[in-house]
Amino acid sequence: MIIDCHGHYTTEPKDLNRFRQEQVSAAKDKARLPSKASLKITDDEIRESIEGNQLKLQKERGTDVTIFSPRASAMAHHVGDATTSLEWTRVCNDLIRRVCTLYPDNFVGVCQLPQSPGVRPENCIAELERCINELGFIGCNLNPDPSGGHWKEPPLTDRWWYPLYEKMVELDVPAMVHVSSSCNPCFHATGAHYINADTTAFMQFIQGDLFKDFPTLRLIIPHGGGAVPFHWGRYRGLAQDMKRPPLEQHVLQNVFFDTCVYHQPGIDLLLKVIPVENILFGSEMVGAVRGIDPTTGQFYDDTKRYIDSSSLPDAAKRQIFEGNARRVYPRLAARLDARAA
Amino acid sequence: MIIDCHGHYTTEPKDLNRFRQEQVSAAKDKARLPSKASLKITDDEIRESIEGNQLKLQKERGTDVTIFSPRASAMAHHVGDATTSLEWTRVCNDLIRRVCTLYPDNFVGVCQLPQSPGVRPENCIAELERCINELGFIGCNLNPDPSGGHWKEPPLTDRWWYPLYEKMVELDVPAMVHVSSSCNPCFHATGAHYINADTTAFMQFIQGDLFKDFPTLRLIIPHGGGAVPFHWGRYRGLAQDMKRPPLEQHVLQNVFFDTCVYHQPGIDLLLKVIPVENILFGSEMVGAVRGIDPTTGQFYDDTKRYIDSSSLPDAAKRQIFEGNARRVYPRLAARLDARAA
Repeated sequence: MIIDCHGHYTTEPKDLNRFRQEQVSAAKDKARLPSKASLKITDDEIRESIEGNQLKLQKERGTDVTIFSPRASAMAHHVGDATTSLEWTRVCNDLIRRVCTLYPDNFVGVCQLPQSPGVRPENCIAELERCINELGFIGCNLNPDPSGGHWKEPPLTDRWWYPLYEKMVELDVPAMVHVSSSCNPCFHATGAHYINADTTAFMQFIQGDLFKDFPTLRLIIPHGGGAVPFHWGRYRGLAQDMKRPPLEQHVLQNVFFDTCVYHQPGIDLLLKVIPVENILFGSEMVGAVRGIDPTTGQFYDDTKRYIDSSSLPDAAKRQIFEGNARRVYPRLAARLDARAA
Repeated sequence: MIIDCHGHYTTEPKDLNRFRQEQVSAAKDKARLPSKASLKITDDEIRESIEGNQLKLQKERGTDVTIFSPRASAMAHHVGDATTSLEWTRVCNDLIRRVCTLYPDNFVGVCQLPQSPGVRPENCIAELERCINELGFIGCNLNPDPSGGHWKEPPLTDRWWYPLYEKMVELDVPAMVHVSSSCNPCFHATGAHYINADTTAFMQFIQGDLFKDFPTLRLIIPHGGGAVPFHWGRYRGLAQDMKRPPLEQHVLQNVFFDTCVYHQPGIDLLLKVIPVENILFGSEMVGAVRGIDPTTGQFYDDTKRYIDSSSLPDAAKRQIFEGNARRVYPRLAARLDARAA
């Protein structure tokens, strides 16, 4: 079985975007907010949006299940206030739930959180519980920078975030550390902000002692860990200079990287330097890069091909494609086991 | 000949730090500013600081010339105002000049610029001219984020920066795009801010059209280009989705990466995906990572070893060690040719 740990609903039916546009333009005048009841999305529209895109690509590429969450760049936690964020988050999560209900074999949900700049993460707990306990989701996306490129929240190792981690541990769900769009003109969203956030989070984990306090907390850093595997010597060396324990003990018991790296040499490096148990197959499909690589004739984001073509032994490939995801997302493992039984 | 394009004076004599500390504590009370005349650094102190460190390591590692600039993390353009920055910058550049005068065969200067948050880059032109025309320097370090981790300046492709680029082109000197320390607690300086800045700058160059306006402008992105080589497929794919020309035409005529990547697999990836003419040997020595890698028994930052051990043909290695630096820093080439003649 091949589990893609990183898929977003980037092909949403049009009315979702209409709703969001109205919500954003009403951010300062709540009287003009669109009602949730105004949102009209039929099951057929969902089917059309999925069957011509993610489901078609799953079949073509030979993947089985996608861990599926709302479009990351559309979370835009910096827009409006906590109330705006909560309503938008619930709408997006409910839509993911509908996709997962229509295609229970192909998609399993991960939720957006109603984060808002400067608002304590406690405000996310109710929605996390709703998504896990009522909607059957298996994890969440956690934005380390709800300000959208201004980085005003404390580092992820700060006690500021602890109440949310406590709830994640209690529910036994991991988070993917994933920023949203950038409202800082210095940072292109998918080309700079996403990758920088991945790198930043990993360095915060080296500096801090988060996993002493939460030994069972699990966090996935997407996009192959940002710059980290390419600079693995730098990170090992910095940890050493800072008298931190080796990264395998200090960070890698709790932190995992996906395989959203869009060329063979990048994947080969990732597989070479990062322990196999810390790598989860992911493609970010349909996502940041949608074209075909003229040097290979294949989609850049068809990351399964790179892993298939790597020199990794078959058992290690199976770990990356399935075993590690089952371990990191125990609620997924339980679901799959129940279905098989 | 082996030219290291990336060395900082990180072993400065103590009185420089005393001066800076007094300057920083007086940032809001100019009456207490230390006088430049108070700075007491003897040639012997400089010799001691260099001979036990950079010069010793040059000899041990078999490198010949280091392109040498003030400690990057100490530029701290966000401290004080433009006047503070100018005085500190002149002191630091003068000290580099003294090192280069004492060891003319081993060090050639690159200057810090007196940048200051929100201050137009025109304010750097006089110091750039002084360093190039009077001190014999061959380039400069350009900080894309003088705010120190808050990213409040426009992208490097914005016309805001153009007057400085015009002067660089006129003087025929390149800039290394290099941030300084971070005053944003989210970003560790050498583990996150440096690498993020490299990635950010490259993506800005993809988005913009800077090199249409400045076809001879040359910029070096340090630390192996941040995350860029690891995500080379992503950058090629993003450029393609954005209908930009191929990166070889659009960016790589003007942008170069150094080899400050501290492990063999990282260097191997860099050499594999980035054209050889865009890579300049650099070590950042003595710099961000000072320890010995227990897996190799060698210094992490002894990057010459990784290039020596790579499968690159000898002619390509020579380009990386010498030829490309001569091309990117024509004032260095002229100096070396004059010395040889």
